[in-house]
Amino acid sequence: MKLVRYGRPGKEKPGLIDNEGKLRDLSGVIADIGPDTLSAKSLAKLAKLKHASLPPVRGTPRFGVPVAQVSKFVCIGLNYSDHAAEAGMPLPKEPIIFMKAVSCLSGANDPVMLPKGSVKTDWEVELGVVIGTMARHVSEKDALNHVAGYCVVNDVSEREFQLERGGTWDKGKGCDTFGPVGPWLVTRDEVPNPQRLGMWLDLNGERAQTGSTRTMVFPVAKIISYASRFMTLMPGDIIATGTPPGVGMGMKPPRFLKPGDEMRLGIDGLGEQRQPVVPFKL
Amino acid sequence: MKLVRYGRPGKEKPGLIDNEGKLRDLSGVIADIGPDTLSAKSLAKLAKLKHASLPPVRGTPRFGVPVAQVSKFVCIGLNYSDHAAEAGMPLPKEPIIFMKAVSCLSGANDPVMLPKGSVKTDWEVELGVVIGTMARHVSEKDALNHVAGYCVVNDVSEREFQLERGGTWDKGKGCDTFGPVGPWLVTRDEVPNPQRLGMWLDLNGERAQTGSTRTMVFPVAKIISYASRFMTLMPGDIIATGTPPGVGMGMKPPRFLKPGDEMRLGIDGLGEQRQPVVPFKL
Repeated sequence: MKLVRYGRPGKEKPGLIDNEGKLRDLSGVIADIGPDTLSAKSLAKLAKLKHASLPPVRGTPRFGVPVAQVSKFVCIGLNYSDHAAEAGMPLPKEPIIFMKAVSCLSGANDPVMLPKGSVKTDWEVELGVVIGTMARHVSEKDALNHVAGYCVVNDVSEREFQLERGGTWDKGKGCDTFGPVGPWLVTRDEVPNPQRLGMWLDLNGERAQTGSTRTMVFPVAKIISYASRFMTLMPGDIIATGTPPGVGMGMKPPRFLKPGDEMRLGIDGLGEQRQPVVPFKL
Repeated sequence: MKLVRYGRPGKEKPGLIDNEGKLRDLSGVIADIGPDTLSAKSLAKLAKLKHASLPPVRGTPRFGVPVAQVSKFVCIGLNYSDHAAEAGMPLPKEPIIFMKAVSCLSGANDPVMLPKGSVKTDWEVELGVVIGTMARHVSEKDALNHVAGYCVVNDVSEREFQLERGGTWDKGKGCDTFGPVGPWLVTRDEVPNPQRLGMWLDLNGERAQTGSTRTMVFPVAKIISYASRFMTLMPGDIIATGTPPGVGMGMKPPRFLKPGDEMRLGIDGLGEQRQPVVPFKL
């Protein structure tokens, strides 16, 4: 099942994409897609609906973040060996955890705004994991049972803020619009193996990132199990699981985003995002 | 005005502490104390109520986090010069920002639970700032106008997770119960100068931390202005502004929390917290 939240920012309605790719309205069935609707039981109820009988949505509305009320946006750093190499950083011995401010969450095709004074804004296509049921000290074996579904995340990053301004990475990760998520939340049943997903990102029509979740240093189950030892993962929390090679920082010479650029990115079965890059505006 | 949320976890009601120190119920006036009730206008309405006419609350209920729906729990690291010295770290050139998982938020007197496998859990009394109105690229001069009020925060930290497990500090900062906040949210009008507040923390009745917000490296107005350049601060967001000297990590030899310990901490005019330390429990 492909769940979406569509409509203007802050006014999104729940919907789903049916088997024919049509957007249908779910607002007669559930108030929103959020922590309360992500358990296996709640999702099973939605799956049992006759999708063809749900009202079709006209036009091509904006897609918001497919989950409302995200309480944590947890990220895993340097989780692809080739990306660690291009970043000039050693391969982590255990998962690196950092956090994006939830205020950076943004629709899949919303513009990405360069922060004021930014000189090194960069892209990162990532597999996003949406937690469905609370995960606290879960085993690797049980970890995927806590997943509601998967989505595309662009972990937009300002490298100067992240790496050259002192302290932790969080400073360069949570600027407004730095967290495009979606367009869809694809439920777990449609992703039998999250470690076999091809992924890519194009900048202005040229391929920049190519990868596969196959080459993750720490697979999704390990990440969930590991993170759940340090913080309780709540329904609706999103984990961005790291990026494959091809970010701007790793290019020779390095290349960063400028107004007018366009990012397009996708992951097998999870849909595509397209973001224009716009200048800072107060 | 001293605002509180009282009652069992997840069932807290809004209340206030009147001029005689009595707890009175606000649930007939507002549904909760959260992002929607923290603007200067909303707070002014509450201040105008005849507090003596509000229903008194019997008994001594638990105090929850005095703000509901906290979207970000932002922290400033090494913000007291003496503490940076005891931590063996250089004084930061600009504020260090990291984040605590909001799932660690905890009542002022709730037990602090040692994480599984923890060997270095430590205490940090801190001045907490609660944002009242959205702050985005605000000037230092205007920054305090965005503050709803102040509170005591214990930025409980697992030093091994924070410093020896790779990656950023966030891993050792967001464990469950690591964020006691309160007991009160003291509105800004009662704290004319946030840089003149004495603060202290006792471990098992012995003074461990003594300090004053006077010795902050970066004062509150600077912190808000600075953080608001990297992430938009939302109503209800809490900023913990760093800790003065006296943490366990800085003792010779270092000393860390064990089950049965008791922390007691307070800040001038903002009330006191008291937390028993309990072993890990699944």
